[in-house]
Amino acid sequence: MSQHIVVIGGVALGPKAACRFKRLEPGSTVTMIDQSSMISYGGCGIPYYVSGDVSDAVQLCQTSFHMTRDPQFFKDVKGVDVQVLTRATRIDRDNKRVEVENVETGEKASIDYDKLVIATGAAPRKLGLPGEDLEGVNYVANPGDATCIRESISKGQVGKAVIIGAGFIGLEMAEAYADMWGVETSVVEIMDQIMPRLVSPALATMGQKHMEENGVNFYFGETVERIEGKDGRVTRVVTSKRTLDADAVIISAGVVPNSDIAKEAGLYVHERGGVYVDEFMRTNDPDIYAGGDCCIVKNLVTGADAFLPLGSMANRQGRVIGTNLAGGNARFDGVVGSFVVKLFETSMAGTGLSLESAKQSGFDAMSVLLIQQDRAHFYPTKELMTLEMVVNKANRRVLGVQGFGSSGDAMVGRINAVAAILKSGPTIDDISNMELAYSPPFAAAMDILNTLANLADNALLGINRGVGPDGFKELWDKRDQDACFFLDCRENADAVPYMERNPEFWHNVPQGEIYNRLDEIPTDKPIVLVCNTGARSYEAQIMLTEKGYKDVTNIHGGMASIKKYGVDL
Amino acid sequence: MSQHIVVIGGVALGPKAACRFKRLEPGSTVTMIDQSSMISYGGCGIPYYVSGDVSDAVQLCQTSFHMTRDPQFFKDVKGVDVQVLTRATRIDRDNKRVEVENVETGEKASIDYDKLVIATGAAPRKLGLPGEDLEGVNYVANPGDATCIRESISKGQVGKAVIIGAGFIGLEMAEAYADMWGVETSVVEIMDQIMPRLVSPALATMGQKHMEENGVNFYFGETVERIEGKDGRVTRVVTSKRTLDADAVIISAGVVPNSDIAKEAGLYVHERGGVYVDEFMRTNDPDIYAGGDCCIVKNLVTGADAFLPLGSMANRQGRVIGTNLAGGNARFDGVVGSFVVKLFETSMAGTGLSLESAKQSGFDAMSVLLIQQDRAHFYPTKELMTLEMVVNKANRRVLGVQGFGSSGDAMVGRINAVAAILKSGPTIDDISNMELAYSPPFAAAMDILNTLANLADNALLGINRGVGPDGFKELWDKRDQDACFFLDCRENADAVPYMERNPEFWHNVPQGEIYNRLDEIPTDKPIVLVCNTGARSYEAQIMLTEKGYKDVTNIHGGMASIKKYGVDL
Repeated sequence: MSQHIVVIGGVALGPKAACRFKRLEPGSTVTMIDQSSMISYGGCGIPYYVSGDVSDAVQLCQTSFHMTRDPQFFKDVKGVDVQVLTRATRIDRDNKRVEVENVETGEKASIDYDKLVIATGAAPRKLGLPGEDLEGVNYVANPGDATCIRESISKGQVGKAVIIGAGFIGLEMAEAYADMWGVETSVVEIMDQIMPRLVSPALATMGQKHMEENGVNFYFGETVERIEGKDGRVTRVVTSKRTLDADAVIISAGVVPNSDIAKEAGLYVHERGGVYVDEFMRTNDPDIYAGGDCCIVKNLVTGADAFLPLGSMANRQGRVIGTNLAGGNARFDGVVGSFVVKLFETSMAGTGLSLESAKQSGFDAMSVLLIQQDRAHFYPTKELMTLEMVVNKANRRVLGVQGFGSSGDAMVGRINAVAAILKSGPTIDDISNMELAYSPPFAAAMDILNTLANLADNALLGINRGVGPDGFKELWDKRDQDACFFLDCRENADAVPYMERNPEFWHNVPQGEIYNRLDEIPTDKPIVLVCNTGARSYEAQIMLTEKGYKDVTNIHGGMASIKKYGVDL
Repeated sequence: MSQHIVVIGGVALGPKAACRFKRLEPGSTVTMIDQSSMISYGGCGIPYYVSGDVSDAVQLCQTSFHMTRDPQFFKDVKGVDVQVLTRATRIDRDNKRVEVENVETGEKASIDYDKLVIATGAAPRKLGLPGEDLEGVNYVANPGDATCIRESISKGQVGKAVIIGAGFIGLEMAEAYADMWGVETSVVEIMDQIMPRLVSPALATMGQKHMEENGVNFYFGETVERIEGKDGRVTRVVTSKRTLDADAVIISAGVVPNSDIAKEAGLYVHERGGVYVDEFMRTNDPDIYAGGDCCIVKNLVTGADAFLPLGSMANRQGRVIGTNLAGGNARFDGVVGSFVVKLFETSMAGTGLSLESAKQSGFDAMSVLLIQQDRAHFYPTKELMTLEMVVNKANRRVLGVQGFGSSGDAMVGRINAVAAILKSGPTIDDISNMELAYSPPFAAAMDILNTLANLADNALLGINRGVGPDGFKELWDKRDQDACFFLDCRENADAVPYMERNPEFWHNVPQGEIYNRLDEIPTDKPIVLVCNTGARSYEAQIMLTEKGYKDVTNIHGGMASIKKYGVDL
């Protein structure tokens, strides 16, 4: 039986659902409407168009083989009818009809549906700031924004840029401005770190430091109070603490689901926006599906409602909807919250809960931090990777893993491997024994993920007791109070430069000599153990503990993480 | 209560078990014996030492911070006593004692144990060939072999090398000879492809072609009959079909577990060698553990016994044994069989079962092949990745995924993500909806793994009916018989070169024009559809099927895979 499907929204989920359905039911018809003239673009690519990595904005609207995804394309290639510049104004569920109007002419019409898909997406969060509408102030939402932003750079109008918000898009835009165009770029963030809640302060600081080395300035814990301009064009951003000159301002303070039309139609919507759907992506009206950035999803680690606007998720959900429109029973159960972002020559990635979000979710959680080469240490090309694992202390369940590494694919591959099992509630032991393909050009014999879980295991066992580079900094900052004994347990040559710079505070006994040189290690004050990465100092900790030392702290990540974190030693 | 642990074998598993145990029970003692003078080396690094990527053989015996793992190191740093050049000749279980002899002096002794670890590893399979003992004929097993092989290259003695066996080590050695030293290198393999049973003929051919482009010659389906020499040094390899000149010969025909000592002690051993252990890595003697290359493991996909000599597995098993020696209950349940190997600028990786091994294991299996960019198609740096998914038709269970891609980490990351869930028996749908971290520099919005599962779904649904590049070649080779109509459904400009070269056989109707040009497509013969990767031809297949065409075959992987496979069009 032939059906007519109406899809509201022509980006990511909408086209995916429409095309999947048409492939399953070629004899049915699909009408997809969008209020914009641009549809089916890769919005996630905008920072790379701004940077110049993507040379032409049309590439964001093309298939992998250079066909532009415009209404004619959808008609000829996909068999989907598209009406652009068409805004849905009301869903009339009783009559199974969508009321629409043409955004240019104001002409009204209605479209009957057998089944409806709400794919209205999300809109950039507006901050309600004075000056938000000045020329040169942009969001990063659609190809129009992208063109506008890049044109002003190309014209040489932008010497200084201010980014509001240090989330994914803000950081990607900061890189685009600073890296490719040499624009003096500042990021203002209300919280006290980049990527708040997503990664720990230690990882965030490593990423921040790398971006600072590439010319990006950060101002944390500051709110933007107003944006000032001259002759209608932005000139300054005034924060709670300072005034920053700006020829361009990017507001990247998150997005808000476009769910009003669903709410007005009586569909269940979260109090802060976002349509509720079941595991088949159906709303409370069995003839109406919804998905993508306008929806609420279930966090499979916490079981709580979540809002996760991601193009990848929208695509997967779109296929589920397309299948179910055609009578299938495909499921989308929820998300674990995986992410990755490139930051110049590095990347930050994660899945599941950070320590902060785990605690906020009520878990009695802890985390451990590990730094290790991303492949066999004897293999010539290798990079350090830092991973942090968050664990529920009560039952050894792994709640999340986050990391900071090179801009290659090695780290995100590990994150994806953890993500694959995260919803099934893995324990430390599952990751300690995870089987990762091994060959020296790709991994260490004991992969960093295995070692990370082993570290968590040893921490819970109480035999590897330590803190990360942020904990080290706290202890080191109080070195004048003589509260700790800092013991470098590497070979002497490694320790000498630090002993020379800090003769009062930096001590050295190589780990292999500890039993013979115990008299050099005081028993009346806490010992802080440092080696290159935290592995030898762990062995030293076991030795000292065996010899009766009670208060010994191992610096997880050792000197390698301390350097990446940016402590001046 | 203090224990004395004896470990037979000082590479990979042995040291790992010994050191883990010592960290958990610093007050106990461990004696590790090895018949060689070299211990704890990274044998998997030998090809990279031969190639020159690793400059000094000692690096393979060093920690990541350049300490050499010799007996003194184990004593000082790990608290483990090591006796090298000491061969275990008998395990006296009744008296809990290992009888040993010094391999240089012949001196005999015995060592009492509370618990014993058998970590005797595996030995290269000898082929029993005439000439196997000639100078210049080597195995790839230990640093001695490595030094010997590299010295003869460095001295300029090697102009031509013959590798016997096209498994991991054979291929790595072929690359080492051909790439870094310009040696004329040939590989002789008794089976008809590289990496037999591990990957499909299609993937194997792609890898082979890349290696051939880098100067390696392959001779398949040939057995080596003898090795000939002059003045004690190798000069020729005689196969069942030809004679190859050779200044160096590498025998890499697999390894055989060293389990005789276990068998003689009455421990359960597989009929073809390999000690049986339970999930706690214990033999049938509760005081004797075993692990690593001398053991049998359980294949978690088939449930069958397996032999998988891999340094990574040995390390993870070693930790399990170390934990359990100290009274723990760590488990090692088995393997799914993940692997990766670098082949010049490409890599081959996989997990679980190939189609061939699935069928051999009794599964009614099928496979699909997909080629796709490894990140957003608009992102400037990207590479094509080919993945093949093997599925149990009866229940949609994914049995394995294998792939051929660049030498970066993108593909192995996907393989690891599948491997992470493979033992839990995932269905196609689990991978269709797998959450992979997304950002344009790292992935496509619909990740290649998602698309691969979607392809398998569509194949099982019967709406995407196709074959891979090997199937295309079979059809194309019979083109003179006029049995099929080859229809290129890309845009005209893409098809023209092929139409010009094959005017009788190559036809073109762009997919978007099919409904208007049906009269150009015959209804009386099978249609073979080709596009760039198999995606548009899938849409074309749906259109033609809707219009009543009965016999339409889609070429999975399209022209991209046909090119990598090496069909001359």
